[in-house]
Amino acid sequence: METWIGSIAGILTSISMVPQLWKVIRTKEVDDLSWPMLITLIFGVALWVFYGLLHMEWPIILSNSFSFIVNCTVLTYYFLFSKK
Amino acid sequence: METWIGSIAGILTSISMVPQLWKVIRTKEVDDLSWPMLITLIFGVALWVFYGLLHMEWPIILSNSFSFIVNCTVLTYYFLFSKK
Repeated sequence: METWIGSIAGILTSISMVPQLWKVIRTKEVDDLSWPMLITLIFGVALWVFYGLLHMEWPIILSNSFSFIVNCTVLTYYFLFSKK
Repeated sequence: METWIGSIAGILTSISMVPQLWKVIRTKEVDDLSWPMLITLIFGVALWVFYGLLHMEWPIILSNSFSFIVNCTVLTYYFLFSKK
């Protein structure tokens, strides 16, 4: 059971930024987002990928690589569409 | 070394939403945020707290409890200040 809980928790936290990415693509409105939040998150998930590689733990590598890509895309949109 | 990388990764991902909370408190502007993102994240970190409790892993329990509180606060501000 515990493995299940960890897997679902990992999936939820990994995909959580997808709705935000979808909203940014749809609305092109980004000014209320915090770019320091995105940068902190990107560094964090990048380190998790590195941690996963050190332990050859594929669930950690894959879920955090996905998060890394999604968050980098949101950050790119932020700098493309930010009016401030 | 690996424990260090995991700890720093955990701290970064746990505190990542703090700059977003700070911005929301300062600006009271939330409409560009995605509430489905916040809810997905809240469920995810809640499950991580449960997972941590099952394994009595205090780093997982504490970091995700902190995330849970921060994200619930951002979600509360979202519903308080959303104009849509």
